[in-house]
Amino acid sequence: MSNPTYDTREETKRLIERLFPICRSITGNGVRETLGIINEIIPVNISEIPTGTNVFDWSIPKEWNIRGGWIKDTKGEKIIDFKNLNLHVLNYSLPVHKKLSLDELKSHIFSDPAHPDWTPYRTSYYRENWGFCMSHNQLIALKDDEYEVFIDSDLSEGSLTYGECFVPGEIEDEIFFSCHICHPSLANDNLTGIAIATRLARLLKAKKNRYSYRFVFVPGTIGAIAWLFNNKEKTKNIRHGLVLSLLGDKGGFTYKKPRRSDAALNRYVELAFSNGNYPNKIIDFYPYGYDERQYCSPGFNLPVGCLMRTPFGQYPEYHTSADNLSFISFDQIEESFVFLESLIYIIENDKYFVNLFPECEPQLGKRGLYEHIGGGNESQKRQLAMLWVLNLSDGQNSLLDIAERSQLSFKLINEMADILYSNNLLKSL
Amino acid sequence: MSNPTYDTREETKRLIERLFPICRSITGNGVRETLGIINEIIPVNISEIPTGTNVFDWSIPKEWNIRGGWIKDTKGEKIIDFKNLNLHVLNYSLPVHKKLSLDELKSHIFSDPAHPDWTPYRTSYYRENWGFCMSHNQLIALKDDEYEVFIDSDLSEGSLTYGECFVPGEIEDEIFFSCHICHPSLANDNLTGIAIATRLARLLKAKKNRYSYRFVFVPGTIGAIAWLFNNKEKTKNIRHGLVLSLLGDKGGFTYKKPRRSDAALNRYVELAFSNGNYPNKIIDFYPYGYDERQYCSPGFNLPVGCLMRTPFGQYPEYHTSADNLSFISFDQIEESFVFLESLIYIIENDKYFVNLFPECEPQLGKRGLYEHIGGGNESQKRQLAMLWVLNLSDGQNSLLDIAERSQLSFKLINEMADILYSNNLLKSL
Amino acid sequence: MSNPTYDTREETKRLIERLFPICRSITGNGVRETLGIINEIIPVNISEIPTGTNVFDWSIPKEWNIRGGWIKDTKGEKIIDFKNLNLHVLNYSLPVHKKLSLDELKSHIFSDPAHPDWTPYRTSYYRENWGFCMSHNQLIALKDDEYEVFIDSDLSEGSLTYGECFVPGEIEDEIFFSCHICHPSLANDNLTGIAIATRLARLLKAKKNRYSYRFVFVPGTIGAIAWLFNNKEKTKNIRHGLVLSLLGDKGGFTYKKPRRSDAALNRYVELAFSNGNYPNKIIDFYPYGYDERQYCSPGFNLPVGCLMRTPFGQYPEYHTSADNLSFISFDQIEESFVFLESLIYIIENDKYFVNLFPECEPQLGKRGLYEHIGGGNESQKRQLAMLWVLNLSDGQNSLLDIAERSQLSFKLINEMADILYSNNLLKSL
Repeated sequence: MSNPTYDTREETKRLIERLFPICRSITGNGVRETLGIINEIIPVNISEIPTGTNVFDWSIPKEWNIRGGWIKDTKGEKIIDFKNLNLHVLNYSLPVHKKLSLDELKSHIFSDPAHPDWTPYRTSYYRENWGFCMSHNQLIALKDDEYEVFIDSDLSEGSLTYGECFVPGEIEDEIFFSCHICHPSLANDNLTGIAIATRLARLLKAKKNRYSYRFVFVPGTIGAIAWLFNNKEKTKNIRHGLVLSLLGDKGGFTYKKPRRSDAALNRYVELAFSNGNYPNKIIDFYPYGYDERQYCSPGFNLPVGCLMRTPFGQYPEYHTSADNLSFISFDQIEESFVFLESLIYIIENDKYFVNLFPECEPQLGKRGLYEHIGGGNESQKRQLAMLWVLNLSDGQNSLLDIAERSQLSFKLINEMADILYSNNLLKSL
Repeated sequence: MSNPTYDTREETKRLIERLFPICRSITGNGVRETLGIINEIIPVNISEIPTGTNVFDWSIPKEWNIRGGWIKDTKGEKIIDFKNLNLHVLNYSLPVHKKLSLDELKSHIFSDPAHPDWTPYRTSYYRENWGFCMSHNQLIALKDDEYEVFIDSDLSEGSLTYGECFVPGEIEDEIFFSCHICHPSLANDNLTGIAIATRLARLLKAKKNRYSYRFVFVPGTIGAIAWLFNNKEKTKNIRHGLVLSLLGDKGGFTYKKPRRSDAALNRYVELAFSNGNYPNKIIDFYPYGYDERQYCSPGFNLPVGCLMRTPFGQYPEYHTSADNLSFISFDQIEESFVFLESLIYIIENDKYFVNLFPECEPQLGKRGLYEHIGGGNESQKRQLAMLWVLNLSDGQNSLLDIAERSQLSFKLINEMADILYSNNLLKSL
Repeated sequence: MSNPTYDTREETKRLIERLFPICRSITGNGVRETLGIINEIIPVNISEIPTGTNVFDWSIPKEWNIRGGWIKDTKGEKIIDFKNLNLHVLNYSLPVHKKLSLDELKSHIFSDPAHPDWTPYRTSYYRENWGFCMSHNQLIALKDDEYEVFIDSDLSEGSLTYGECFVPGEIEDEIFFSCHICHPSLANDNLTGIAIATRLARLLKAKKNRYSYRFVFVPGTIGAIAWLFNNKEKTKNIRHGLVLSLLGDKGGFTYKKPRRSDAALNRYVELAFSNGNYPNKIIDFYPYGYDERQYCSPGFNLPVGCLMRTPFGQYPEYHTSADNLSFISFDQIEESFVFLESLIYIIENDKYFVNLFPECEPQLGKRGLYEHIGGGNESQKRQLAMLWVLNLSDGQNSLLDIAERSQLSFKLINEMADILYSNNLLKSL
């Protein structure tokens, strides 16, 4: 796999900067605009599910769109304006235009006293309401006055939109990536996931792969449920999957396991972490979080985990105006991408071989194999890797098994298997 | 399950105080009197097995009864008297009445130099002998004199007596409790076990239970062997069981596992300990101790463990006159009872449910289920408990499995399962 | 098993001292002479495999023999002489006789700057070459001079020699020991293994054993491969096996497990270590080291581990002139032998019994079994051991299982099983 170049890193940055200002929600034009931009980079198949469609126990809600919103005091000065920060309007807010007292206004304002400088991000998808979000300092500075509130939104029959990019491989077995696309101007949550998934899809499209790959870009919860409803059959091909989110903060990696305890993905991720010496934390599944909740519901029970850095709710900027472009680190995003590349490298190359000379060791010297081992610092490791591959390749151990048992890097094991295969000491299973 | 009231606690105390003075042994009227008192509280079915009856490799011994005993010096002063402390006569002592020298007397006296103020408790069931027990200080104070010894006992054809209380439930599967009733005036060993078993039986009799419950009150070793001999078929219904003993000292709980490593009881006890934050020690089975030795012999191999506080032989007062009414704590006895109540609560409610909306999460909001979750401190835990029950209820996980995996309390998991069941989101298996 | 006597210890010493001066290699008269000496102690069946014979992926090399070798300076003084130390000539060196400059000479000299006083041991079996080994101090002291080099060796058609001693037992199942016999004057590596194997074989020959025992004395790698090639069928009887090597240094034991994770040998070795309180380290299999590499190749996958003290390459004297008679400790060799005796004791006596009185405990007292328990310090342990044997002897637990679970010594468990068996409480399976 090629090293990521400066260009793709810059592209990732540009994509995130371009998507940041858009006001997304679980439905509406923000989602469509987002998918349109992704579609400039990779081919995205877009689905529209009409309002009222039943998807399992749920129903597609009305479509929400917003054009603006503000609060003015009696002098006509705007206290807050959607134009400056789309978090200021409660996501899924009903339209409103009226004058009211400070007390009446306060019952429609959300703020967070624990972080008085930041505007919180709030939604009201399934209970009709109108409201504004502002910093707590702004709220307490409000004078006893009459205020004019205006929200130029509509909530009406329409549809829910999601996108999908499929990259066919040699086999039907799929590796599945999902990220949510319903958050407005928040950067880590989840433009990092979107940008990394997009770049990964483009990279894989440009190569010949063993596995097929599927990337879904869905509004959280209801979008994932709608996708599962429409693609129940396809889920049978999913061998491994990850929800990608929160991949740009300064924290180490967090891998949340799928519900099923037999998920091979756990071993792949663990090996990729240890081979790359990435600071990481592996946590057990629990039925809360992102869309792994749906993918791991008992009726699907897919081997889909979640890859994050600092988990949701565990960093102070989470779901506030402080989760912005200056909060995320493009170095961290880059490292997240490189990690996923290395994970895919392991999964793609994890194969079973059979030693064709299983009785005693084959004579490496007469085949010139010691030349491949070399004489440097690494030569002992390389020879040991070769012997491990020969010793364990009995059809019961894959290269993953061999890398784990030998405690040598998967890359080295794979390289030695290639050499042994070229020298007719192994056959592929 | 109702909270234990002050009255029942007082009753437990009264029962122990009433049973304490009786001189019990492995046979005889002390056992009958004890079972008669228990029978005032719960219905006890009493069996008499005649002397000489073969029970597996053993034979029912002669019946022992005692009316008195003392040692007098030449002045006619009583050195020790059975009337003051029934431990003074070697349990199962033959009758004797003669005069002898101090040296001759000493070969029939048992004392414990390590605890010179306490009278030890000694028995001689299977080797005919006569003897006395006294404190070591009394022994060394004995003057060179002629002594008159008198033991008014008899050892003759009769029978061994045990009692049993059965509480039928919805199903034939049984939970089994056993305690020994062969110790004379000793309090922790084992009036605490007897009193707690009696109170548990009364409580369960007053309720409708899923499981059937069997309480056996047997003389140690030979009594348990006789019961097993007569009830071989019934043991097939035993799903879980505990020998109850030593439940009133100041120590934390000790749970000794059954011989069989697959005993589900281990998980129940562990969960009950951790849910209630009880200081505890879980130890592996070993073929020594109380009647679990017989219940766990290879021909029965019943899932019967042993619940104690400080294990036998590990507190200094064990098997001495210091294991008396002032040694035991009625607070500790109460806690032991409450623990057993909580254990039974878990076993009774450990059922399998199936989520009727297994594909994705069901929509909790539209069913008003968030009201059951509430808004307080506990709301996050309650919501998580609900999601865990939904996620794992696939027919493979019982509520025990769910409580263990979620690390939430069994009570909370059970409560949420009830709510989901009432809302037609679960069916019972 | 009898205690080792002073005589056998002395014999072991004499054997090592007698074998030490011989110049062994993977073929040639040194091997034959060595096997001849072993044959004076135990009957050794000797095989000769002609040069050019194909053995799996390998071919038997030419036979090497050497009579002498030296380097002289222009004054005719011998710088080094094979007569003084056979390590001085590169093992498998071609014959040579010529004069050359210091620079030319240096390209044929091996020394180890890290240990400048010691002569390293080097071989060149599969690449034809000639050369000398000397201490680094000798090398740097060489003056710019013309040197005469002479190696009186020949490398020509002949055969490879190995030996084997089989001790038949009651059953065909075999315990297998292998040691390499290809090292010249090195003591720990591997005269200690040879001497211990010889003594073990003689001991077992003098007794009636349940298992059959096979001892093979083979040149490293090619010898083991040749033996496996000629004895493929016989390997099916191997139940447990050990490569014996490096058993005389000051280190604790190192046991390297076989490749197969189900090897019962692991449990036997672990128990023998813990029962004897031997300092030890148990390490996982890896496909490098001694001939366990061949025995554990995937086509054989024999349950053969390796017993060493300090592992090869991990003590400075390894493969140098410092691994000599003063490096090894005859106390350590003795302890290695005693450990192997205790291991064999466990394996020989690890049997399954069935308790003939499985329902409840049998009555020990009426059979006088408490006399076997005694009254001393050990009595509690002995009674517990008896109860453990009775409790677990259900046909599913061998004495090994019982010793492990009870954490009592295997010897005690075995002794109690013997007593119970003699008293008709157990039958043998």
